[in-house]
Amino acid sequence: MLQERQSNLLATFERLESNVRSYSRSFPVVFRKGAGAILEDENGCEYIDFLSGGSALNYGHNDPDFLNNAVQYLTENGIVHGLDMATSAKREFMECFEEIILRPRGLTYKFQFTGPTGANAVEAALKLVRKATGRSSIISFTNGYHGASLGALAVTGNRYYRDAAGLPPAGAVFMPYDGYWGADKDAPVYLEKVLADASSGVDLPAAVILETVQGEGGINPASKSWLQSLERLCRENSILLIVDDIQAGCGRTGDFFSFEFADLSPDIVLLSKSLSGCGLPLSLLLLKPELDIWQPGEHSGTFRGNNLALITATAALRKYWRNGELSARVTKTGHIMSQRLREIGESNQDQSLLVRGRGMMLGLDCGTGELAGKIVRNAFEGGLVVERCGADDQVIKLLPPLTIDEQTLQRGLDILEKSVNAKA
Amino acid sequence: MLQERQSNLLATFERLESNVRSYSRSFPVVFRKGAGAILEDENGCEYIDFLSGGSALNYGHNDPDFLNNAVQYLTENGIVHGLDMATSAKREFMECFEEIILRPRGLTYKFQFTGPTGANAVEAALKLVRKATGRSSIISFTNGYHGASLGALAVTGNRYYRDAAGLPPAGAVFMPYDGYWGADKDAPVYLEKVLADASSGVDLPAAVILETVQGEGGINPASKSWLQSLERLCRENSILLIVDDIQAGCGRTGDFFSFEFADLSPDIVLLSKSLSGCGLPLSLLLLKPELDIWQPGEHSGTFRGNNLALITATAALRKYWRNGELSARVTKTGHIMSQRLREIGESNQDQSLLVRGRGMMLGLDCGTGELAGKIVRNAFEGGLVVERCGADDQVIKLLPPLTIDEQTLQRGLDILEKSVNAKA
Amino acid sequence: MLQERQSNLLATFERLESNVRSYSRSFPVVFRKGAGAILEDENGCEYIDFLSGGSALNYGHNDPDFLNNAVQYLTENGIVHGLDMATSAKREFMECFEEIILRPRGLTYKFQFTGPTGANAVEAALKLVRKATGRSSIISFTNGYHGASLGALAVTGNRYYRDAAGLPPAGAVFMPYDGYWGADKDAPVYLEKVLADASSGVDLPAAVILETVQGEGGINPASKSWLQSLERLCRENSILLIVDDIQAGCGRTGDFFSFEFADLSPDIVLLSKSLSGCGLPLSLLLLKPELDIWQPGEHSGTFRGNNLALITATAALRKYWRNGELSARVTKTGHIMSQRLREIGESNQDQSLLVRGRGMMLGLDCGTGELAGKIVRNAFEGGLVVERCGADDQVIKLLPPLTIDEQTLQRGLDILEKSVNAKA
Amino acid sequence: MLQERQSNLLATFERLESNVRSYSRSFPVVFRKGAGAILEDENGCEYIDFLSGGSALNYGHNDPDFLNNAVQYLTENGIVHGLDMATSAKREFMECFEEIILRPRGLTYKFQFTGPTGANAVEAALKLVRKATGRSSIISFTNGYHGASLGALAVTGNRYYRDAAGLPPAGAVFMPYDGYWGADKDAPVYLEKVLADASSGVDLPAAVILETVQGEGGINPASKSWLQSLERLCRENSILLIVDDIQAGCGRTGDFFSFEFADLSPDIVLLSKSLSGCGLPLSLLLLKPELDIWQPGEHSGTFRGNNLALITATAALRKYWRNGELSARVTKTGHIMSQRLREIGESNQDQSLLVRGRGMMLGLDCGTGELAGKIVRNAFEGGLVVERCGADDQVIKLLPPLTIDEQTLQRGLDILEKSVNAKA
Repeated sequence: MLQERQSNLLATFERLESNVRSYSRSFPVVFRKGAGAILEDENGCEYIDFLSGGSALNYGHNDPDFLNNAVQYLTENGIVHGLDMATSAKREFMECFEEIILRPRGLTYKFQFTGPTGANAVEAALKLVRKATGRSSIISFTNGYHGASLGALAVTGNRYYRDAAGLPPAGAVFMPYDGYWGADKDAPVYLEKVLADASSGVDLPAAVILETVQGEGGINPASKSWLQSLERLCRENSILLIVDDIQAGCGRTGDFFSFEFADLSPDIVLLSKSLSGCGLPLSLLLLKPELDIWQPGEHSGTFRGNNLALITATAALRKYWRNGELSARVTKTGHIMSQRLREIGESNQDQSLLVRGRGMMLGLDCGTGELAGKIVRNAFEGGLVVERCGADDQVIKLLPPLTIDEQTLQRGLDILEKSVNAKA
Repeated sequence: MLQERQSNLLATFERLESNVRSYSRSFPVVFRKGAGAILEDENGCEYIDFLSGGSALNYGHNDPDFLNNAVQYLTENGIVHGLDMATSAKREFMECFEEIILRPRGLTYKFQFTGPTGANAVEAALKLVRKATGRSSIISFTNGYHGASLGALAVTGNRYYRDAAGLPPAGAVFMPYDGYWGADKDAPVYLEKVLADASSGVDLPAAVILETVQGEGGINPASKSWLQSLERLCRENSILLIVDDIQAGCGRTGDFFSFEFADLSPDIVLLSKSLSGCGLPLSLLLLKPELDIWQPGEHSGTFRGNNLALITATAALRKYWRNGELSARVTKTGHIMSQRLREIGESNQDQSLLVRGRGMMLGLDCGTGELAGKIVRNAFEGGLVVERCGADDQVIKLLPPLTIDEQTLQRGLDILEKSVNAKA
Repeated sequence: MLQERQSNLLATFERLESNVRSYSRSFPVVFRKGAGAILEDENGCEYIDFLSGGSALNYGHNDPDFLNNAVQYLTENGIVHGLDMATSAKREFMECFEEIILRPRGLTYKFQFTGPTGANAVEAALKLVRKATGRSSIISFTNGYHGASLGALAVTGNRYYRDAAGLPPAGAVFMPYDGYWGADKDAPVYLEKVLADASSGVDLPAAVILETVQGEGGINPASKSWLQSLERLCRENSILLIVDDIQAGCGRTGDFFSFEFADLSPDIVLLSKSLSGCGLPLSLLLLKPELDIWQPGEHSGTFRGNNLALITATAALRKYWRNGELSARVTKTGHIMSQRLREIGESNQDQSLLVRGRGMMLGLDCGTGELAGKIVRNAFEGGLVVERCGADDQVIKLLPPLTIDEQTLQRGLDILEKSVNAKA
Repeated sequence: MLQERQSNLLATFERLESNVRSYSRSFPVVFRKGAGAILEDENGCEYIDFLSGGSALNYGHNDPDFLNNAVQYLTENGIVHGLDMATSAKREFMECFEEIILRPRGLTYKFQFTGPTGANAVEAALKLVRKATGRSSIISFTNGYHGASLGALAVTGNRYYRDAAGLPPAGAVFMPYDGYWGADKDAPVYLEKVLADASSGVDLPAAVILETVQGEGGINPASKSWLQSLERLCRENSILLIVDDIQAGCGRTGDFFSFEFADLSPDIVLLSKSLSGCGLPLSLLLLKPELDIWQPGEHSGTFRGNNLALITATAALRKYWRNGELSARVTKTGHIMSQRLREIGESNQDQSLLVRGRGMMLGLDCGTGELAGKIVRNAFEGGLVVERCGADDQVIKLLPPLTIDEQTLQRGLDILEKSVNAKA
């Protein structure tokens, strides 16, 4: 009877929305409201959200302060759409970001606003590094994920996505990520070898692109030493370094940038997802000033610099990043989570489930997609929204809002624990 | 002194925003507010907006009804970000679109929401037609513009954009657009010839992609007979037909879809820009049901279905498309504009300027980019925001809000007229 | 019974040779000997050869002078294989070619020997022009044919060949050849238009590659004015000009080079086929000295400079090109042929067959591949080896040895005439 | 004075032959004659040939029996050039090859003759496997070498060659060859891992192409177990297996095919170089019958099946492969060589030089290209023609004719030894 009701609720989606729809299959209800870590469906049922829009809602749903700013802006007829014209909203965002994020970290970057999706930012970055170096090849890593448009797809490892391109992806070579290949542990030694070998078949690339913790690829964190070796290798070979911080950035791992713990200085940093603070589309490239060789208008797009999103983005910076409180909280909550997850993982009767990740970007590796799928379905029935990732969907990824209170967190973990134990 | 003040105002942009910034160079002020057809800068100066976000603001800036809906939605904690989960906002949009737009026109389509930019939609469409046909090549047209990501760029004619790719664009062949090539007038006869010729070097394509009025390419309208011949040619050769209605759709040419006047039945229609009604990022593919062969999740993206934009999009449909009033108004205003533009064009002392376009998507072809540039700069100094397009930026494109009142329209045209006459 | 005997003779080929075999299907006998214009099969039947190895046997089969030189060279243990080492045979060839061919024509070129096929030469040329210009795109022409390897295939128009690539051909754009497109007559005006138009979708190419008379594409001769306009267009746009003279060169059109009549000065000339004089594999690039920017060994190959073929090539130059006799003879024989062919073409009861070509490179356009196929089969039964070309195999191509005596020529044309008339 | 004389001798080459010339720089004399293992220059100086045309002269220069057959064939007006028509020479070759080579080894293949270079054969193979599988990607190996045309270059590891393409090589992925990567020893475990991982970024390939002993890549032999594991992996994943036996085949490693020792059953085998026996251009694909899905004429070429070369190829099969004598001799001579080389390698005062290879395909790894270069120059001054290979030209490759007599072999090795010791 629940199924029938759901089916009625979802009939419009089944009839009118393309087969490509995905999450509405995993969570077959119609959502209506969101606040903090709680989602509510049309029947008034509540769900704890450990997915957070795939890390696009690091501050939870509908932070009231951000919304207030948005409402006030709309009420005052602030510019909602301005192509890439200069607006007060954009200036304020840039100045804030410089003051609150860049300067305290000793970083100097210029801002490029592209179409407001992560893929748009990735596309712009790949174009820029190719233009800057005159080389065409990009090094990406096993299990890397960077987007679904043709350029971004070429640096994305997942065959399911790649096969949908209809054109052979071009211009990228994949190398083993940290830990992928036993012998490659703690330094990208295979990459080093093929770069040094003039007959390896691996051309000198324009750039390396990577996530410091791989999200869609299965919550795989790279170590500090591996990342530092990689950066050194890039410098030695005049290869540009792009950190795609779309999922792991904006505080998810504790620091604002996921690469701070390793003292990296990427040539390009990509931000999106949680940048706007409340899930409005926004993306940003940070470019080393000397790399900003764009001609005016060479990369364009109608929705560059979504002004309403810039307003909420500024609000988020002001509320959460003027001091180290949020970072400290993420570290603490991350420890609580990983401790609890480890217990849950070990409590599984048949096979120990492994915990991976950094900060509040954690994964529970279930070994098979089948097992992970059962647990996730159980969880949803118990009132927890959580999803899978990894090559075989074998990893449950846990991305609660960074701002979640401990009680709700523990309730969510309780549901997860029951779901693991009741998995049959 | 004006320049000095502007320079101070723009100092942050020059220091922090990438060289790639474009419109902020054409309009060197900082905009703060927008309402209807009027933009206001930080000094309180007002400008009539004949650019309308490149047709992303067909209903003008900040329509109060749309904003009210948005504010109410935010206030009630409506879902702002929900990946592609089922939400009340998305259902309401789809049902509305079906009822108000599709059914009265006898159209049956399924909806695919991609990342909210036009380029995302183009990328998805190209992937789908390649997957559906097993062919890799796409036919695009001279002066076509479809976006800046790698896949979309390959079907975009502009060399300035193409050269920025850093990789040879792949998988597209360009054919003469209607009127491009004398002999090709009124039917795509060259395309027909090369398709029929097994040694033409032009492979059987997966699809044809086109704008029925080319926007960035210089405001070039295709005729009814040319479009119908093209559609017939596609059918006869099992080639899919994609209409990119991102700029010309949503009422810009009078009808909701730009292809209605030619009774086309495209396999895929792409919408974005004015779809959300108020400039929030949103894009949509309409797919013939039999073409909806996507596997779940094969094309993904974090900001698929920007829910706040779906709310304002629904408001726009309800306010403007329940009856034929707006269409009639666009037709009427378009006539006024083109009449007046013709007079202005002919008044130019040295050389007659040509008027082109359909509905309220009109261009004043100045022959050279230099002349067009002077006029546009004059216009801005006179208080009119208007931009250029075409291969050499030789065409002034006129895209006032569809909802502009006649008095403001005439004021804008007055400024334009003065700008033409004072062009030295 | 003939069929049975043939089948026995061909059983080995059917059993052991790949389905890809082609001419052995058109001419289902086993050939054993060749001399001048005459082929002989294992049953002692003789055939007049109007195919001449697709113009690889311009001097007929087994010219006794060439063979004597070859035999003597072998007998003296001359170097048969020497990679690209310096050999007496190569020096003699280069000096001879310079003295007999280049100097009298006022041409200055350097020699590059690649692998001994035309495709190898095309591949080398495309690499060199891309390297020299830093551009990737090549302009080729409708119905152009340049070879079956991946690079050469991309500039080859035939879909049957292109579809066999298994990869989308990359890096080439096709333009209408002279006469292909009514309005394009006598000057490449469409090419000129798209090059001048920065939004045409046609990138500035590295080079143009063309045959001055298209062979496989259907015996299409370009006019002097069209070729000269094309060369001018190349110069004005800094585009390199490659003449693929593999089929039309070595005297086939009368002059040694097919472009002499139009006074072209190509940046690269490609020769192969009849270069060795007797059908031994050999190919050659002639490079303008300033374009010879190769690094040592950048393009390699085991059979560069097939020394035995260089010996016969030198013999051919000495025997036939020290004076203008052969050229005059080709002109005269060509006139006889085209006159007679015109009569044959007009004698066809249903529909006039058209004659095209230049020198002794002539085609009889039968309108359909079916009709041409019948005629060709009739001809073979009558003792004439002749083949078809063109997009639909609708053109009978006539390429007798340049040295054919008039009696044999007329006999061959008699057979052709009967074949046309008896075509049912 | 020697230099002056040489310079005079080489003046024509310097003036007229492209900078791309390569071996004529290493061996700055003009060669005139060759017989067995001996080359003779125009001054009458003799050189022992340990290069053998890069393994194109496995039976030495100008085997008198082969030449006799060639001369007789020419004298009798045998078909020299016949496109891919059926000829007596081709039938005889195919029947001989089947009887002498295939049947005794229990192999069943069909024959495809392409243009007569190895690169032509590689191009054909890559097209066929893509067509057969509908996949575009090919797996090649670090340090693999397969040719200079665009398709072949994409599977060739050497950056010096790759950079000359002017287009990004497409459609290939490189994996570590046996021994390249410590952990990958004895089985292609990294390849296995990335194939099994749906997010590795490595698409399921159409085929794997490899040399069982890499020639240009530095004389790297793969082990039996590695090759067998690779074949198993291909079978399990429906990946086709192409063995490029162009350099290592035709007896170079002892057996006729280089893969016999590992009992492989490749889907496609590529032969060229020594196939014709005397250095005439010839190449051949052996195709598993079920893979022979070519349409007639889909892959073409003027010099398919060089008939004179087929005559000498048949002679070589008959003279050397009717029994196991040559194989036994190669094994024995190979042992003598490797024993002696090991002594020479160890005698080097500064650093031991390493010996690698199989049969009579041996390499002396000198560590640096500089050292190897000195030794090779010394050797040439001493009367020995020998060349380098490997990514940095650090390996001296030793490819004497398989038929060399022991005395000449030892003389050559004496010269090499002196060259090593006198290297300063």
